[in-house]
Amino acid sequence: MKTVNIILLGYGRVGKAFVRLVQEKQDFCLSRYKLRICIGLVLNSRGGLRLNLEKESEKFLYDLVVGSKLEEFPYWEWGMDFGDALDCNGLDVLVDCTPSNIQTGEPALDCTHRALDRGWNVVTANKGPLVVDFDGIRKVADKNRVSLGMSGATAAALPTLDVALHSLAGAEIHRIEGILNGTTNYILTRMSEGMEYSVALKEAQDKGIAEPNPSQDVDGWDTAAKILIITNVIFGTSYTLDNIHVEGITHIPCALREKAKGSGKAIKLIGRFVQDGKGRDLETKLSLIDPSHPLFGVNGAQKGITFFTDTMDSITVTGGKSDPRGAAAALLKDIINIYLG
Amino acid sequence: MKTVNIILLGYGRVGKAFVRLVQEKQDFCLSRYKLRICIGLVLNSRGGLRLNLEKESEKFLYDLVVGSKLEEFPYWEWGMDFGDALDCNGLDVLVDCTPSNIQTGEPALDCTHRALDRGWNVVTANKGPLVVDFDGIRKVADKNRVSLGMSGATAAALPTLDVALHSLAGAEIHRIEGILNGTTNYILTRMSEGMEYSVALKEAQDKGIAEPNPSQDVDGWDTAAKILIITNVIFGTSYTLDNIHVEGITHIPCALREKAKGSGKAIKLIGRFVQDGKGRDLETKLSLIDPSHPLFGVNGAQKGITFFTDTMDSITVTGGKSDPRGAAAALLKDIINIYLG
Repeated sequence: MKTVNIILLGYGRVGKAFVRLVQEKQDFCLSRYKLRICIGLVLNSRGGLRLNLEKESEKFLYDLVVGSKLEEFPYWEWGMDFGDALDCNGLDVLVDCTPSNIQTGEPALDCTHRALDRGWNVVTANKGPLVVDFDGIRKVADKNRVSLGMSGATAAALPTLDVALHSLAGAEIHRIEGILNGTTNYILTRMSEGMEYSVALKEAQDKGIAEPNPSQDVDGWDTAAKILIITNVIFGTSYTLDNIHVEGITHIPCALREKAKGSGKAIKLIGRFVQDGKGRDLETKLSLIDPSHPLFGVNGAQKGITFFTDTMDSITVTGGKSDPRGAAAALLKDIINIYLG
Repeated sequence: MKTVNIILLGYGRVGKAFVRLVQEKQDFCLSRYKLRICIGLVLNSRGGLRLNLEKESEKFLYDLVVGSKLEEFPYWEWGMDFGDALDCNGLDVLVDCTPSNIQTGEPALDCTHRALDRGWNVVTANKGPLVVDFDGIRKVADKNRVSLGMSGATAAALPTLDVALHSLAGAEIHRIEGILNGTTNYILTRMSEGMEYSVALKEAQDKGIAEPNPSQDVDGWDTAAKILIITNVIFGTSYTLDNIHVEGITHIPCALREKAKGSGKAIKLIGRFVQDGKGRDLETKLSLIDPSHPLFGVNGAQKGITFFTDTMDSITVTGGKSDPRGAAAALLKDIINIYLG
């Protein structure tokens, strides 16, 4: 039996879902993987909650999940920051559930570097640091011989990196195509049924699929960030957002809509990496795809990814829960695989 | 850099494709995984070919691939058997490419046990030993702390076990549905287009998709063996073929065909594991599936599998080369993952 002590950074929707999931899966992780997964410290922008892991973790989790605010706990420390956290002993892995800032990566980027340098593994749902400085992060992780779990930042419950690195080991990937954003795919699906963009967006917002400010999604940046990270991890490249042509779904060209009409084909927002005789190319592009394409049937808020390889043909993965619980499940998966490995 | 020395058992279509692939991927495995993958010994039912790994492996591979018969090589030893192989030093992993015998598992079952007891890892494309005695094999592997690679026996280039064990770690699977046999799916696809069974079978044979004796496939036993192994590995159960209801595609009930007509649904041969309030159940069954089912679009010789989970929703994997090269790629993948891990 191994105990894994977590420092949880960020306590929004994903952070809360993660705490709930850790509580729910405690017995399963113990019996199946011989892992005792505890949350030792929760940190948000206002302070931190340090726990005596062995004694209080479970009670804490229970209380937290049933609705108390972090700040109402007796152990809450106003103003505790990441520097203070680094002084704590007995912690093993940073779980980053703070919001993605794909321009600067901060403040998570700085925390990621310091955590890795401290010898902690890092498991993240935050695309920002990976988009801005994957190269730097990888180097610090390698130097300190710690692991980086990135499933939560690369389509979450839909396995992408796992499949490419593990299930396709030995095969060479020359093309990746993904429907990597549930919000845009939901809106495009509704539009293909005749709905106007603004109505479809409103519906997606009402259903909790789209954010109140949907621009990261509908302008294509979320898809771009994901295909960028996936590509850099798989190929060891150092692409940045400047290297990627990005389209969103807010203005679908008339010509494309005309072409789609009655053709039996579907308009999808595809994150794409291509390597051919001419070189390598990355893009996020509105694409007309054929019924024979493996992602054709990926509708609504579903996601999917296809890897085109030399020895195994194409492998497509679809599905996966697109919500905070799905993201939490992806974080838990990475923790298990780090400590089982 | 690590050298992996292989004893290859069986030199039929898959064994030959494996040798060719090892040769083709030698540089890639070295640069990407720091693994030097060599074939140290090839054994068939008539004898064996022992190689001085460092010196002759590459030349041997080249010669072999360009068409010489095993028996024409100067080092060929008539009558060499598995017992002799066990006396060889410097070998690391048994790669089993012998044909599946799902009734007795032999002769591969005996070889598997002895290889594991010898301290060799085993990577196999042979379903027989795993169907007949997975429990025993697992125990010997655990006792000797060696690994078992089973991708080649569980739908080959289509990742099944990888995804369940690695990509879905922490999630609990309560249902598995798979189109696990390319031959039957090809025939069913052609029949859905109006072709008679016998004509579709003949076409599949002409295309090299179906075996000259197709009974293992068309009677459902190949699918049954695969869902059985997948279930036993994931859940640690000890099902045998006696525990599974098996249907084939040779006699599709009229009622089912009538029901399918004009319904927009598709008849598929599904290998299925279900765990619900009533217990666990395993079957291989002709099933009418809906256009919304994630396996609906899996047509022709394609395969696919869906895992239904508690925390990640359903995850579906489709595609993967259904031929000896695809099987060889699955074997190579398992070797890489064993020695990288």
